[in-house]
Amino acid sequence: MGNAERENRWFKFYFASWYRKSPYFQRTVEAGCTSWDLYNHMLIPTLYDDDVAEYWHLLEHVALWDVAVERQVEIRGPDALRFTQLLTPRDLSGLEVGQCRYVVLCAPDGGIVNDPVLLRLAEDHIWLSIADSDALLYALGVQAFAGLDVEIREPDVSPLQVQGPKSKPLVRKLFGEEVASLRYYRCAHAELDGIPLVVSRTGWTGEVGYELYLRDSSRGLDLWDAVMEAGREFQIRATAPSDQRRMEAGIFNYGNDMDITNNPFEVTGLERLVELDNDNEVIARAALERIRAEGVRRKLVGVRIEGPPLGMWLEDFWPVRAGDRVVGRLTSASHSPRLGINMGYAWVPIELAALGTPLVIASPDGPMDAEVVPLPFWDPGKQIPRS
Amino acid sequence: MGNAERENRWFKFYFASWYRKSPYFQRTVEAGCTSWDLYNHMLIPTLYDDDVAEYWHLLEHVALWDVAVERQVEIRGPDALRFTQLLTPRDLSGLEVGQCRYVVLCAPDGGIVNDPVLLRLAEDHIWLSIADSDALLYALGVQAFAGLDVEIREPDVSPLQVQGPKSKPLVRKLFGEEVASLRYYRCAHAELDGIPLVVSRTGWTGEVGYELYLRDSSRGLDLWDAVMEAGREFQIRATAPSDQRRMEAGIFNYGNDMDITNNPFEVTGLERLVELDNDNEVIARAALERIRAEGVRRKLVGVRIEGPPLGMWLEDFWPVRAGDRVVGRLTSASHSPRLGINMGYAWVPIELAALGTPLVIASPDGPMDAEVVPLPFWDPGKQIPRS
Repeated sequence: MGNAERENRWFKFYFASWYRKSPYFQRTVEAGCTSWDLYNHMLIPTLYDDDVAEYWHLLEHVALWDVAVERQVEIRGPDALRFTQLLTPRDLSGLEVGQCRYVVLCAPDGGIVNDPVLLRLAEDHIWLSIADSDALLYALGVQAFAGLDVEIREPDVSPLQVQGPKSKPLVRKLFGEEVASLRYYRCAHAELDGIPLVVSRTGWTGEVGYELYLRDSSRGLDLWDAVMEAGREFQIRATAPSDQRRMEAGIFNYGNDMDITNNPFEVTGLERLVELDNDNEVIARAALERIRAEGVRRKLVGVRIEGPPLGMWLEDFWPVRAGDRVVGRLTSASHSPRLGINMGYAWVPIELAALGTPLVIASPDGPMDAEVVPLPFWDPGKQIPRS
Repeated sequence: MGNAERENRWFKFYFASWYRKSPYFQRTVEAGCTSWDLYNHMLIPTLYDDDVAEYWHLLEHVALWDVAVERQVEIRGPDALRFTQLLTPRDLSGLEVGQCRYVVLCAPDGGIVNDPVLLRLAEDHIWLSIADSDALLYALGVQAFAGLDVEIREPDVSPLQVQGPKSKPLVRKLFGEEVASLRYYRCAHAELDGIPLVVSRTGWTGEVGYELYLRDSSRGLDLWDAVMEAGREFQIRATAPSDQRRMEAGIFNYGNDMDITNNPFEVTGLERLVELDNDNEVIARAALERIRAEGVRRKLVGVRIEGPPLGMWLEDFWPVRAGDRVVGRLTSASHSPRLGINMGYAWVPIELAALGTPLVIASPDGPMDAEVVPLPFWDPGKQIPRS
């Protein structure tokens, strides 16, 4: 039995026209999806039958995720790269066509607007594959007075993720050796039975994996069927994104672990996304340079939590205590089946952020001992560098 | 029996830390709320027990709505009004302190970013009480290069709506005659048992009504309890926002009826929000002037739909046909108990937008005859002007 049935409360949620459905929606229902989340105003599968079984399937075979909720912010035009550089402190100056980057978009005060994967599809053509916030609106706001020649919109693009060790032979079978051999954080144009696609070597797992960006939503069922048919020999199955696996990889969930009120220096692992030793024009430059000079007062850190295996995810943030004081909050927690530990992310004052610091998590069932640990939780030889 | 049980499909939705809860959440559970929606990344009550009973209660007594999902975009500073004017084509030049306006925020191409109620709290202090999109990000993007002296953030503000004919004596009892006598689209600072508030004479119904903007979320339960206690003699009850009543009033639901791909000239009743016969600096000015000169090719219109009473709301948009062609889509539909008709909003080509035009709605149960009609559906002597 998975964690869901043990732990999490639910309520009746009515389908409604104001929640967009993905072009794969019908197939996810047929594949047994029983619960959805809302993300970028669209339904995303949360659970088929058992999150632990789905986790193991991802690790051992190949999993197919409907992640059409990863909407794209498309920036096109002669100034596309220069405009995109305004939005992010990552240095895009060496970015080649066909290259991807994990970036943070920052507001004028350094706050994190979103943490998308950037794809450079052509000299003048960029996609930001976004997490759950209307980053399109931020880009449109910047466009108003930036004085640059770009067109910005949400194009008709609906990604699937194929993740897990057998995703590579599957992608080889579908698209050939060249696409299957894409290096990590590279992308390429592709086609399947006349369906226009972009394929990237990225994903939300840390496993070997790819994303298939469908460029014509009217072909959604065709694409799903073709992938499932080709994947049969690799034991492909539809699953929901795995909170356990993304936490093992030290990946954050925007809007839950961090939001617009946080800056990248406050989040373990995102500091490296601030690259300002250059002359790039970046909206958040002044704020981020000031924050770097002054230091931060709080930090989102990884914690290992003692005690019995925790449930599927948190229903509410849990308080973090040091002695008798509430000093922060736990934003994510999940049990790693293969590590046999409870993983967590916690906001703590900077003086309690050092590795090895003991903390107490005030769970609804009572206090649980915890300790600040390095991220990621699972990193076998760092064989997959985050790019 | 309400419409919900007759019609609408639902699934299991798990509570999760990434869905913000309102400061009134616990009380809505205790009051019998059985279903929530997601709006601005936060849970909002959708249904207590019976949407038709809740509709009649609103019309006859007073209803209390948890609308903490109406997040505020706060714009403060010496240039607050000038900055806000950039975002909207409504003319704000005569806007007094204590005045509110229903506005559209527009992107550089004229697309609708959001349709908030604007409150001018002080010379240098404005709130935009937003619909369901991250309008904060649009404002932060504009701030990047606007060169104006403003601070922009989401403050700790959580509105309640008290709506219905008995809301006036209730507000009088709570806050005194001055607040109860606020003219339509006026607001005032107020306090209740030391709880800091702003009260406005606005709402999502067309009924007599007020919004209570709680300015300290730690006092949410106190405010709820004080309002319920004072409201007992007026038969107050907690209900969900009424889709029937908002449609009777010709009010739209952003993200469902219209979105960023639409401009205000395309939506019946929003044309009047474009006021550009002045020298105001407005980001969308050039685009909107061009659209006005060229005319629009499609329009969101009100339709009356024949046949048996429709259910609570649409699960998907329904196709609109003229003859054998699909020409548009129905975005909202609801049955008005007091009018005894089915109300709808439909996107149609401009040549089919004239009053009296016959249409056919392709419902899942078969074709339904419809006709373009004026908005609002219910407007008894226009006793409540929209400001």
